[in-house]
Amino acid sequence: MDLLSIKDPSFLKRMSNKELEALSQEIRQFLVEMLSVTGGHIGPNLGVVELTIALHKCFDSPKDKIIWDVGHQSYVHKILTGRACQFDTLRQFKGLCGFPKRIESEHDVWETGHSSTSLSAAMGMAIARDLKKEKSFVVPVIGDGALTGGMALEALNHIGHEKKDMIVILNDNEMSIAPNVGALHNILGQLRTAGKYQWVKDELEVLLKKVPAVGGKLAATAERIKDSLKYLVVSGMFFEELGFTYLGPIDGHNFDALFENLSYAKKTEGPVLLHVITKKGKGYQPAESDKTGTWHGTGPYKMDTGDFVKPAKKQPPAWSSLVSETVRKLARSDERIVAITPAMPVGSKLEGFASEFPERMYDVGIAEQHAATVAAGLATQNMKPFLAIYSTFLQRAYDQVVHDICRQNLNVFIGIDRAGLVGADGETHQGVFDIAFLRHIPNIVLMMPKDENEGQHMVYTALNYDDGPIAMRFPRGNGVGVQMDEEFQKIPIGTWEVLKDGDDAAILTFGTTIPMAMEAALALEKKGISVRVVNARFIKPLDEKMLTGLLENNIPLLTIEEAVLQGGFGSAVLEFAHDHGFYHSQIDRIGIPDQFIEHGDVGSLLEEIGLTTEEVSKRISILARKKQQRA
Amino acid sequence: MDLLSIKDPSFLKRMSNKELEALSQEIRQFLVEMLSVTGGHIGPNLGVVELTIALHKCFDSPKDKIIWDVGHQSYVHKILTGRACQFDTLRQFKGLCGFPKRIESEHDVWETGHSSTSLSAAMGMAIARDLKKEKSFVVPVIGDGALTGGMALEALNHIGHEKKDMIVILNDNEMSIAPNVGALHNILGQLRTAGKYQWVKDELEVLLKKVPAVGGKLAATAERIKDSLKYLVVSGMFFEELGFTYLGPIDGHNFDALFENLSYAKKTEGPVLLHVITKKGKGYQPAESDKTGTWHGTGPYKMDTGDFVKPAKKQPPAWSSLVSETVRKLARSDERIVAITPAMPVGSKLEGFASEFPERMYDVGIAEQHAATVAAGLATQNMKPFLAIYSTFLQRAYDQVVHDICRQNLNVFIGIDRAGLVGADGETHQGVFDIAFLRHIPNIVLMMPKDENEGQHMVYTALNYDDGPIAMRFPRGNGVGVQMDEEFQKIPIGTWEVLKDGDDAAILTFGTTIPMAMEAALALEKKGISVRVVNARFIKPLDEKMLTGLLENNIPLLTIEEAVLQGGFGSAVLEFAHDHGFYHSQIDRIGIPDQFIEHGDVGSLLEEIGLTTEEVSKRISILARKKQQRA
Repeated sequence: MDLLSIKDPSFLKRMSNKELEALSQEIRQFLVEMLSVTGGHIGPNLGVVELTIALHKCFDSPKDKIIWDVGHQSYVHKILTGRACQFDTLRQFKGLCGFPKRIESEHDVWETGHSSTSLSAAMGMAIARDLKKEKSFVVPVIGDGALTGGMALEALNHIGHEKKDMIVILNDNEMSIAPNVGALHNILGQLRTAGKYQWVKDELEVLLKKVPAVGGKLAATAERIKDSLKYLVVSGMFFEELGFTYLGPIDGHNFDALFENLSYAKKTEGPVLLHVITKKGKGYQPAESDKTGTWHGTGPYKMDTGDFVKPAKKQPPAWSSLVSETVRKLARSDERIVAITPAMPVGSKLEGFASEFPERMYDVGIAEQHAATVAAGLATQNMKPFLAIYSTFLQRAYDQVVHDICRQNLNVFIGIDRAGLVGADGETHQGVFDIAFLRHIPNIVLMMPKDENEGQHMVYTALNYDDGPIAMRFPRGNGVGVQMDEEFQKIPIGTWEVLKDGDDAAILTFGTTIPMAMEAALALEKKGISVRVVNARFIKPLDEKMLTGLLENNIPLLTIEEAVLQGGFGSAVLEFAHDHGFYHSQIDRIGIPDQFIEHGDVGSLLEEIGLTTEEVSKRISILARKKQQRA
Repeated sequence: MDLLSIKDPSFLKRMSNKELEALSQEIRQFLVEMLSVTGGHIGPNLGVVELTIALHKCFDSPKDKIIWDVGHQSYVHKILTGRACQFDTLRQFKGLCGFPKRIESEHDVWETGHSSTSLSAAMGMAIARDLKKEKSFVVPVIGDGALTGGMALEALNHIGHEKKDMIVILNDNEMSIAPNVGALHNILGQLRTAGKYQWVKDELEVLLKKVPAVGGKLAATAERIKDSLKYLVVSGMFFEELGFTYLGPIDGHNFDALFENLSYAKKTEGPVLLHVITKKGKGYQPAESDKTGTWHGTGPYKMDTGDFVKPAKKQPPAWSSLVSETVRKLARSDERIVAITPAMPVGSKLEGFASEFPERMYDVGIAEQHAATVAAGLATQNMKPFLAIYSTFLQRAYDQVVHDICRQNLNVFIGIDRAGLVGADGETHQGVFDIAFLRHIPNIVLMMPKDENEGQHMVYTALNYDDGPIAMRFPRGNGVGVQMDEEFQKIPIGTWEVLKDGDDAAILTFGTTIPMAMEAALALEKKGISVRVVNARFIKPLDEKMLTGLLENNIPLLTIEEAVLQGGFGSAVLEFAHDHGFYHSQIDRIGIPDQFIEHGDVGSLLEEIGLTTEEVSKRISILARKKQQRA
């Protein structure tokens, strides 16, 4: 059929299994083809083709609420709800979002991006449904990886207790972003092979029939044995114990099994957990055979071979590599260094570290809170933990950073990856809040390097810093291609660096926004405006000496940051100026305004919010002219 | 024995069980007596007297790490580690902390206050121990309530997987702060009565012996049945499944049982969970018979009767009551209102609401993340969730507030209780970060009332606000005793209120710091300095019109806030001024400096950090004089 003609999923009701199988193949082909151009989360979506079709056939969305955990597996759902025609714009500026988006469709009832929220959202929706005395199904779809996230476990516990009607689909694909860890995963592994144990149950039935009735006591025992086998052998014990009716495990690519179990689930009172086994990348060989998570989300690739489309010219090292490889080098001479990642060993490029120091590498699964506090625990024992975490996911560990790491002033090095705009992943993943949510925490040092050479020195500085927590933010993508020093250097804490001299005005900025500052300053030089550019590489503490000098000399200041303006770096400069009585300071700020920033290429996003060389040039000119007029 | 003479716990090694029992009684008497004067967490500590003694007898602290989850149950530990003589200063300014504090003793290896961190910390310490090839025991002590917190579950999962040597003490007292909720609690309940099921196992043994051997297959079946009973009946299945060796449940007030199990645990490889049943308040009748959590933490009381020492004169309503009772009133005419609390129904004074609207009240247990996202889920269905949460615990839900509530712009009303300094609970509980961690999130409205009358109007405003999330912060303690209006009024969003006129300078402040502003302003009036006082009740959005007026008229501004200065309300005013080109604005700020604030009475704490009428008077005078000089 023509996928582009689909308006809503109602057509599925009339289709036979055979037709659905054909549709599955068409959808797979469509996804492999479209994503080869745009890139996207190919693996997870190929894994849920049949499951998504089955859900939309068995339930009436949007009356019934299908809630996608994490949400990167919602492409098939988007196709079935009338958005196939927008797939050429997937994850592009003003294009189709890579995650559920309520503004796109009434079928997107819950927006995500971060993991493990679906069960809590479902609980809220189920409570609302029951209070309103409505009849509908609430169907969260959660992966086995997301289930290790603390809030999902909090939710399982609460849902089981409250016994709300809900059909939880556990989409078990044996791999979240990287191979899963954790005991919960072991349990799922046991459940997965539960089919093998069917004979035990059968044997038991026979056995029980042979036992002569010896009164109520033994009969009760026999019943209990059956119960215990129901739990242990037929499996799902873990979930049954929590109060769920456990169904499965079933083959998530088999329509018969899906329909049979979903209709049973619909008839079951209280919370049901349907355990569905799927295969990430199913039907597309390169993705299906992936063991490391490379095909979880990709850029463009060649459809026939699965080769990734490489950039035309050789790129400078990826920031994640630079940081993790520097940590690895330092770990060779410092046994105290231990790396911790919450399920991002690949994204954080920790594979090298892991293979060289397997006993000093801990992938704790999707468990950011636990990761941060494990790091704190290590630091109490004089170890040097490196917590590798994305800016957006560090939000999950805010309290642990405050309460466990900073309050105890422990030597934890937080490597904040993907800081700033991340582009295609959009709203839920932009790393734009970290400055504002970290800067106000006592004891922390927060810095950002201008290039990969300064980056390696900062990593060295951080792992040799013994006065408390220290964090380095660095952007998504690649370095700028500078020469790397052979020897590591310590960068004195709280020192900035003048990159270009000038007296009419000064730009204070760091990281990714330095190039636009330099460009604007160099252009203005030719117009007779002399702009100083400062690499304000320490966001906290500020370089108080340099800043005081600037303020004393009445040099107007423009701060630039690829982060939210409210409470950000620019605000720190304002605070310093006013706290020190420089009430006449000419300080202007450029950064991310008070709104969530959608997906799209970073260039377009920066353009849209006015984080551009032109804007910098305009704003600094105004400040400089005023200064010149005063002089 | 003389408890005051204890220097360290080594003396316990030489004591007989009988002597330990006598010691237990002495410690109980000491606690009941001392806390009757100072107040404190009496219930939890009376519950762990024998357990703490047993731990210090069986382990060698501080070589072995005893880690107290939450930490309010560490008083006995403090007595045994040489701090009995400081108990007259408990929770007082510069006195003994009510939680473990590393600076107090080498036996306090981990600081807490927030729940559910102990297992992650223990994991960090265990990793460090093994990497250093040291021999020691790591012994986290966690309550059944704290176990429902997401990060504890994340940690259980990881510890079970890694099989690190660790002895987790599950201190199951059937009640965290309020009666526990959640399926996990149900499981613990089942384990608690597991003794009853011993006969099932015995019966089974008999049964199995009767079955004739019919080859390998059935023998395997029989083995498996034994296994399944080991899990299900002898209990601990949940923890065994996660990879722990489960021991217990045992009576936590019985030294024989404690010693036997602890020494078995010490010999066991891999993670062990010892399930200990204790009784909160044990040995002191008023606390032991408490069902609601009143005796969890108390102020002073009369030892003989257990009557609480009432304040000399009648107090205005408690802020928590005012807010929850106003929500209750509004819930009578608005069926959409649902209250959600993470384990604080008593602290948040939601008992009235709960009894009137049991079906619209959800205590989700210690699960702040889940609580916030349940509220978000409710809001997607056009309900009006009221999330009742303490400022310090809202830190745990920062990501959920960003990602689920604010990003989706959902109508959630967050009642932020205990905002500002909380006093005796100290560092871990001060509600001083909320402005800084909320203000930078797009879409949120953040406000604080000046008194309980404005408070009720704000609650009304919040529950009638349909444009997104809205939060009201309010302090610990009681209102100021104003007349309450009969009719609710909506307060226009983003409007401030002039409380006193004046043109030489203006103070912008809100909530608890208004009285000091008024006092200073009235005193200065007599000295010929005319100070305006503004109730800046909306922290976000600011009253831009009023603020612009003040800036245009060059009125110097002093902001005051009982919250961290970095990124706080004062910074918002600075940002506004500079963003609108008021570079010459005379703006000074008073608030909490960049440090963690310890425990003590709020008056002493405010004095120490300079949040006083005198300081306000001094700072506003300087600003006003400059203005007068300019004129």
